[in-house]
Order: sequence, then structure tokens, then C-alpha cells
Amino acid sequence: MQEYRRSHTCGALRKEDIGTRVRLSGWVHRNRDHGGLIFIDLRDRFGLTQLVFDPDTTPEYHALAETLRSEWVVTVSGEVRPRREGMANPKMATGDIEVAIDQMEVLSKANTPPFSICDDTIDVNEELRLRYRYLDIRRGDVAEKLIVRHKAMMATRNYLDKQGFLEISTPILGKSTPEGARDYLVPSRIYPGKFYALPQSPQIFKQLLMVGGMDRYFQIAPCFRDEDLRAERQPEFHQIDLEMSFQTPEELYALTEGMMQSVFKESIGAEVQTPFRRMTYAECMERFGTDKPDLRFGMELATLDDIAEKSTFGVFQDQIKNGNTVKGICVKGGADVSRKGIDNYTAFVGLLGIRGLAWMKFQEGKLTSNIVKFFDEECQRQLVERLGVEEGDLIFMVADSRAAANQGLDHLRRKIARDRDLIKKGHYEFLWVTDFPLFAWDTDEGRCVSEHHPFTAPNYEDLHCFESDPLKIRSLSYDLVLNGYETASGSQRIHDSELQKKIFETLQFSDAEIEEKFGFFVKALSYGTPPHIGIALGLDRISMILTDTENIRDVVAFPKTQKASDLMGESPSVVGDKQLDELGISVQHQESPV
Amino acid sequence: MQEYRRSHTCGALRKEDIGTRVRLSGWVHRNRDHGGLIFIDLRDRFGLTQLVFDPDTTPEYHALAETLRSEWVVTVSGEVRPRREGMANPKMATGDIEVAIDQMEVLSKANTPPFSICDDTIDVNEELRLRYRYLDIRRGDVAEKLIVRHKAMMATRNYLDKQGFLEISTPILGKSTPEGARDYLVPSRIYPGKFYALPQSPQIFKQLLMVGGMDRYFQIAPCFRDEDLRAERQPEFHQIDLEMSFQTPEELYALTEGMMQSVFKESIGAEVQTPFRRMTYAECMERFGTDKPDLRFGMELATLDDIAEKSTFGVFQDQIKNGNTVKGICVKGGADVSRKGIDNYTAFVGLLGIRGLAWMKFQEGKLTSNIVKFFDEECQRQLVERLGVEEGDLIFMVADSRAAANQGLDHLRRKIARDRDLIKKGHYEFLWVTDFPLFAWDTDEGRCVSEHHPFTAPNYEDLHCFESDPLKIRSLSYDLVLNGYETASGSQRIHDSELQKKIFETLQFSDAEIEEKFGFFVKALSYGTPPHIGIALGLDRISMILTDTENIRDVVAFPKTQKASDLMGESPSVVGDKQLDELGISVQHQESPV
Repeated sequence: MQEYRRSHTCGALRKEDIGTRVRLSGWVHRNRDHGGLIFIDLRDRFGLTQLVFDPDTTPEYHALAETLRSEWVVTVSGEVRPRREGMANPKMATGDIEVAIDQMEVLSKANTPPFSICDDTIDVNEELRLRYRYLDIRRGDVAEKLIVRHKAMMATRNYLDKQGFLEISTPILGKSTPEGARDYLVPSRIYPGKFYALPQSPQIFKQLLMVGGMDRYFQIAPCFRDEDLRAERQPEFHQIDLEMSFQTPEELYALTEGMMQSVFKESIGAEVQTPFRRMTYAECMERFGTDKPDLRFGMELATLDDIAEKSTFGVFQDQIKNGNTVKGICVKGGADVSRKGIDNYTAFVGLLGIRGLAWMKFQEGKLTSNIVKFFDEECQRQLVERLGVEEGDLIFMVADSRAAANQGLDHLRRKIARDRDLIKKGHYEFLWVTDFPLFAWDTDEGRCVSEHHPFTAPNYEDLHCFESDPLKIRSLSYDLVLNGYETASGSQRIHDSELQKKIFETLQFSDAEIEEKFGFFVKALSYGTPPHIGIALGLDRISMILTDTENIRDVVAFPKTQKASDLMGESPSVVGDKQLDELGISVQHQESPV
Repeated sequence: MQEYRRSHTCGALRKEDIGTRVRLSGWVHRNRDHGGLIFIDLRDRFGLTQLVFDPDTTPEYHALAETLRSEWVVTVSGEVRPRREGMANPKMATGDIEVAIDQMEVLSKANTPPFSICDDTIDVNEELRLRYRYLDIRRGDVAEKLIVRHKAMMATRNYLDKQGFLEISTPILGKSTPEGARDYLVPSRIYPGKFYALPQSPQIFKQLLMVGGMDRYFQIAPCFRDEDLRAERQPEFHQIDLEMSFQTPEELYALTEGMMQSVFKESIGAEVQTPFRRMTYAECMERFGTDKPDLRFGMELATLDDIAEKSTFGVFQDQIKNGNTVKGICVKGGADVSRKGIDNYTAFVGLLGIRGLAWMKFQEGKLTSNIVKFFDEECQRQLVERLGVEEGDLIFMVADSRAAANQGLDHLRRKIARDRDLIKKGHYEFLWVTDFPLFAWDTDEGRCVSEHHPFTAPNYEDLHCFESDPLKIRSLSYDLVLNGYETASGSQRIHDSELQKKIFETLQFSDAEIEEKFGFFVKALSYGTPPHIGIALGLDRISMILTDTENIRDVVAFPKTQKASDLMGESPSVVGDKQLDELGISVQHQESPV
């Protein structure tokens, strides 16, 4: 049997180890032949160690070292010694030492990799990286992100365990439900013509655990959605899912905040301040134009309807007359934005359907702009005051429907923040957003749909609106926003089967549909259900923020492409007819495109 | 908003709390009206607390208490006081106290449950339990098993984390592979006619993580097999899956043993002795007739060929002449087994195809039996010595093919142990079984198949047998047996792409099949693969042993039936044509049974 057990990893050796005999095993990272001596950086997940081969003392291993190529796997023995005077590398943890090799064995040769492992400054095409993910993972930054994710999961579990939560696995072979995104289906062999569905979330099961008296449940749960993927989505993802009985929002806030503190501390050493800020949905929309504001910078929106109305600017006046709104933001120090810069921002909001972007600069003590003439002194004074304008600032204003103005200015605000480098790295601005509407109106389907999900409890103060105006009902829901991303969504749940039925009816599910899809659940609620509350946090999203990446594929070991395919393993793939026959299904004939 | 936050759980209050005002919330477990006073046992996951309602002091709540029914959910306030003289209940953790209630609110009424929650001595039909699993979970023993499972998972993760392992999630939407059990398939919407498969294990992915240099990986991984279920199987199950680079079997043994010690200690407080015993597959089969012997009792098998040959017993002589074997066991104190008892055991092995069960008793210093006359004194002496027979013992002997004799005596040995109560509760006898054959012969397919899986490394001493007799090749594999159950299977993996290819060829995969199914994996191995070793432990099986149940459904929160259906949620279920059309599949027309 080959001997390859290490005495140390490649990241372990220090000055104090000088004189020790060691065995290391790892990958050939770099190979430098300095005429006489050969230097090899040996790599593993833990670091790099410099090996030295001397032709005079160990000619046979020096000769073998000459044959080594990048990414070969070797095991070596030798003595730790100090690097020569002036050759220490302070950037390397092992930079003070090297190992003089007097024994070596090649464990595994390697074909030439399709991209460089040792130089991670090279920007490799993502498709190639995914196709060779096992090589991509060897690159330090990819491995580091998976390590952070592991630490975040450990911190989550240990925190919740200490708080009396039990991790309970819920089924992955579940039932297809009509609400929400598209399900992934799994044909049943035993019941031909029937299907399981992969869960979009363990929502119903975790509520049943509360009905079952388990009191405090959690799970880092695999979830699935068959959607056309955006950059930040994967067909399968994980959520930190939890639920608890006999608790109120204050406990949910405190628990989640403590958990986030622990996760950030344990995984990246960051200190998170608690308690988190809180804001209603209505206030959020007014001040930031979005329900997931990035609070790492200011530039808040202000409504300017009264000022716009008093101005003589026809465009603004018309919009106000039509029941629309005028809102604006103030870019601190933005007077340096050129005319071309302003045109670019105008084009940017144009892509969102905003037809114009009004602007003013405050320079040498006064507002200047092509439209400033439409605003008298008092209007200008109010604008300056409302938006907190100071010397050197720039104002942008949008006149449109409330929804469009909010969306436009939200996007603009974030774009300007990126352009002007206003976002501080390593800052974590959490925000609870509360009092969401319970329902939204689906114009396509002509009915109410759940803003969160149909198990969210209504604010009991608003129950009288059920008949008159269900869109006015606020929900007892609590989104957690972090740096402009929705990272969690929680709510008080309905614990009354009659109220649950009423919600389904408001969503215009027929009695038959309610019975078929949710009958067992409504029934379960009628056997003595405790008040319960819970939340689900997006582990992938949180891992992205922890590792400072915009690409969800960076925090998933073996991600799918945006087209939901695995380039490495080449799935999905064609399967045999025998397999399909056993499942009682056929692939439909594909009509040729006309 | 209702107030229902508890000051204590229902299992918390003690003598020391007497005089304290408390708020409890929970389920009405038992309701006893003693003429004047009403006593209610309030229940939650943590225990029971006795509530007292006094008609004189709190008539309104006494009246309300009269209306309460089993399983209603209430919140109550009151003062903790000692139980009356002689009424303490030492069996209850809270048995010294009761709470005199002066405030109560009903949080949730309950329909009458279909079976009793408070009396768990009643044996409820399993189908009913599964249909109302949320009520079944309220029964203490079900909840307790889920708690033990949670603790086992926590202990596993904390142990492996401390050992430098990283938990890394591998894909659930994977690729269908030809070896092993039947896959669950997931039709792809984006690629009509193509399918994902749910993983039977993360084997390939964990090996790719080693290729990727992650060094030490683990995962409590959901796995799936579409098989006709035995009592101990579920279509989805979890395995504790781990893999490590540059390590040898000794490290794997030590790691696994330490992990099991921690799991048993943390989850049920049991002390497990290490190191575990080790035995080769060959020795196991010889001494126990099985590769997963239960070592909690003795009754080992002995081969008696030489003695049988020297006897004049025709049945034995014929079997030996035909190349078969005679093996026996000695039942300590078994001379008390009646003639009818022996007939029953004969019938029992008859079900396994064994045509006869020879027996002898050792009574009053000599062997007695209907066949003892065929054995001369020397033969009898040898029998007694070989099997360690003492006064009052019983011998059973089977003459058959080696495989049949082993199987028959293994089953018989275990049945006798159960019948004679030889198995000590709370004993945990671990055993490593090593040196399995690499291949088994599949008579149906007329080819070699992998005894474990095709990634298991052969014993390098046996490589010369590849051409001559591949069935003679031993593998570097390590099964962990516990109390007669296979609980884990591990092995050294192949880290050489050429050897891996050779294995696939020996399994008679065509080049096209190798390329299509495993091409990317064989290729991955060629980019510098470290020697690696790993193991997968059955979490469900271990949880069953920890909680002393024979039924896997007891350790799964929401289990499927043996027909793979969820009786509670009624899945699998019929889905809409629109869903199927989007996936490009059709349900095959079912031919009517003739």
C-alpha cells in the first residue's frame, strides 16, 4: 500500500517547525527550475508549501521533479528549513520555510487542465468553469465560498439547537399544489398516471409539525422551482426554514436577529448590530420606492406633488392632474455629473418605461437647470428643503404613476450608488419590512392572489375589509431585507380552519379545488392548532452576501446553468424507453417548428 | 392580539416554583371533573402540568373549563401551588405541583381525534396513524424518536465539523445512471424529452469534490430509490455521507468509530466501546453464515464436514460427496426445547428451502437424538468439542450447499436468539466487515456486477486475477455492521482513470455506455485525483437502532407507506394536462386488465 498520510497540510508549517521531518501530499501548483535547484509549490485546500529539490543531495528525486507537470498529485517527505536570506514570502502563511525533499512518489498524473488553476486572476469563461467544475473548485476563491457556506450552516444549526429547535426532515417527494411557481414533477411507477412534486418549500409540513405539537422546528431544506431562471436563482436551492408555536413577532425578530449575528460572526467574523431597523411596507415604498431598500446609502425618495402643482411646469402639472405623482431624489455632490451623464440616466430610466427625467443642480448657491424657470423662489426653497439639497448636489425628478415613479427612482438610486461608489463593502444593513398587503391583484387572472402565501394570517384589525376591499387587508408578515435583497420572509400563520377556508375562497379556489389540494390541511387545522409563526431565509442569498458575490452559482458546489442544465454531468439527459414504460409515461411528439 | 407567550413549558414547573405566577399554553390532555374541582392535564412537547379550576374562587373559568374537550388548545395563568397531601405523582416531572388557574382563553377548538392521544398504550392501526400523522406526532413516543434523530444529526455534524469536514450540498436534480436500483425521474420542461434523476447517493459528486481538492466532505444527504419497499425502506432516505483524501482505512475506522461514539452518547446517553471488532467477509460467512452478524449473542456456526464424513449418516455423507457442506450450531441450555419446538424450527428453515434439520441434545452426560446412532464415540467427542457442547445444550445441523446452509443457520440462529430472549437491550455490538469480493456474478444478466459500487478499489494484491478470475478479486471495502444490521458501507475509491475504465469493462459496459453515463467522471479522474476513501451511513437505520424500533416509519416525520404513498397528503396525485403538456410528456394509455 502506498504511504501518503500527511504529517501536515500544505498550509500548516511555520518557523517553529524548522528541523522537523514532515510528509506532505497535494497538487503541483507551480514548478520553477532555477538551473540547479527545482522549486515546487505544493497545494491543498489549506495552502501552499514550497518544496526544494537539490540535484547534489537527492539526484533521483530532482530528476523526478523535472518530470512533474501542473496538477499532478504527489506525496513527499523531507525536512523543514528556513528559506534563504531575503527569500521569505510574507504573503504566504508558510512563507518563512521550505521543505528539502528527499523522498517523493507520484500518486496521480494529470492531463493539462483547460484553464489555469494557479492563476486565479485570469477571468475564465463561466461555461468552461461549469463544465470542469471539479477543476474550478480547486481555485482558491471557489473553495473559500463553499467553506463560508459550511460555516454559515453550522452556525445556523448550533444556534437553533441551543434555542430548543429540532431539525426535522420533511418529504421531498410531495404533492403538487396549484399556488406559487411551477412544480417539478416525479412520475410514480406504482400508481401510473400519478405524480409526486418536489417541494417549493416545506410550508405545509412545518405547519403540520406545529399542529403535531413539535413546538419548535427547523430545517435547512432543499426546495425546487421550475422557473425560467434569473441570475440569482437555481432550480434547486436551500432555505433555512423554521416555525414555532405560542410565539409572537417580537420573539421571531429576536430569534432571527440572534441567528444572523451568529451566522455572520461564525462564518466571516463580522459583527452585526441588533436590533434591526423596522419599517412598514407603506413607508418603505414612500421613502425608497421598493419593499427591499438598500440602506447602505441614503438618497431617499421624496414626494413633491405639492411643489409640482404650484410650479408652472406643464409636464408636472399634467401628471398631477391625471392622479399621478412627482417624486425626486437628491444626489449628494452630483453637480459634477455631465450633461452626457444625465442623458445616460435618462436613457436608463427610459428602459423602465419612464418617459422623462427632470434634473436640477445646486451650484453657487442656486438651482440651475433647463426647467428651473418654471419654479418660483418659494417652490425652489421648498424643493431644496424637502430633498435636503446643499451646494454641489444634483436633483432628479420623475413624474408618473406612483408605481412607475417608485420603480424608476429605486433603480436610478441604486445605479447612481454603484456609479458613485457609495456602497461600503463589509457593511450589513438589515431591515424588517412589515404590514405588507395580504393580497395583490392579478390582472391576468382577474382575482386576488396571495402577496406571500395563502397561509399568512391577516392583521386581525383589518378583518372587516374581507367583504368590502380585501386588497386593503394588511398581513402579519415580516420580510427581512439585507443590503437591498429580500433574504427572508416570515409570517404569523392562520391557525383557524374557518379563516383558512375563507382565504382560499377569497383567492377564488372552488370548493372542489380546496378539498382536492388543501383539504387534508384545512382538516388538520381543525384538530387543535396552536398559534404559530415562522420564517424562511434564503441560504443561497445569504451565502452570496457573506462571500460578496452577485452570482448564485459561486455559492453552489455543482450549480446548474440559467437554462437549468448541468454542463459537467450533462443532465438532464435522454433515458431508456424501458424506464419510461415502467413509469407509464411517453415523451410527446415534438411538432417541427413551422 | 391574544397573549399566549408562555412563562414556562408544561414540563418545567417544580416544587421550587411554588408561589410563582405562571402562564402556560398547550393542549387539553385529560379533563377530570371531581364534583367541585376540575383538574386538567395540560400538555406540550415538554410534558404535562396539572391545572386546577375552583368553582368558588374563579367561577367563570371553572365554567369555561367544563366546556373544554380533549385536544383543545388553551392558554392559562395562575399560581403554582403544592399538590394536596398524598396527591403528588412521582411518575410526572411536574408531579409535585399544580397550577390554580385564575385566567384562561381558548386559542383553538378541536374536533374529536380519530384515536386517543392521551393513551399511548392503545395500539392504533398504522394506516390511521399515517393518515393523521399530525395527531400521531402528538403522542409522546413518536415525538421522542424525532428528537433522538435530531440529536443524532447534531452530534454527527458537530463531530465532523471538528474533524475539518465541510458540509457541501450536492445536486438533487441529477443524472440517471444504469447501475444500482431504479431511479426516480424528473421530466425537464426546458429540454423536452430529457429527464433528471433523483440521486441514489451523492457518490460521484463526493468523489468529484475530492478531485476538486476539498479534502474532507460530508453531507446528511437525501437519497432516493424507486424500489418495491421492504419494511425497512422508504423511497427517500438520508445517509451520512463522507469522503476524505490522502487517508487510509485506519483513519476511516477511527473517524467512524469516534463519530458513532459521539452520536450514541449525545442522542441517547449510551457509551460505545472502541475500537470496533473487525472480521473478513470470509470469516464472517464461516462463523455466522452472513456478512452482517448480530454479535449480541454467540451460537456461532461450525463446519462439521470431517465429522459428517466419518459418520455413517447417509444424508450427511451424500451431501459431502456432492460437494456440499454440513454446518451446525449449539443452543446453550436448548435441551428444554420440545419435540414440537424442534419441528417448528425444522419448518422454519424449510421455508428457506432447507430440507432437513438434524438435532442432538446433550443430557445426563451424553448426546441423544434419533440420529446419534450413526455417530461413533470419536465422532460424538469431536462434535461436542467442535461446538462447545455442555450438559443441557441442543445442537442443530444443516447439510446443504454452503450458501443454503449459511443462510438457513443464520436465520435459525437469529430466530432462536429472539425466542430464547438472548438479545440484551441497550447493547451495541459494532463490527467492521472487510475484504468483500469486488464482484458478484449476476446469473440473470450473465455478467459480473459490483458487490458495492463500481467506484470501489480492488485490493491491489489481487489485480492479477482480472483476466483469470475476477470473482476472486477482493475489494478495499469496509461495511459497518451493528446488532445484525448493515449500517454503513465504505471503501477506498479508484483514483486512476484507466483502472476505473477497466472496472466498467469488466462489468461489460460498452465503450458507448461508459462514455455516455460515466464519461465525464472517468475524464475528471484524469486531471490529478488524490487517493480518497469514504463511507455512507444509513441515518434512518441508525435512528431505528437508537430508538429501538423495527419500523423505519417511526423515525421519519412524514413517512410513505410500503406502497410509496403519502396517506395524509394523498400523494402521488393526478396533475393537470397543462402541467404535462409543459413538460412534453403524456400518460400512457393503460390497457384494461384481461
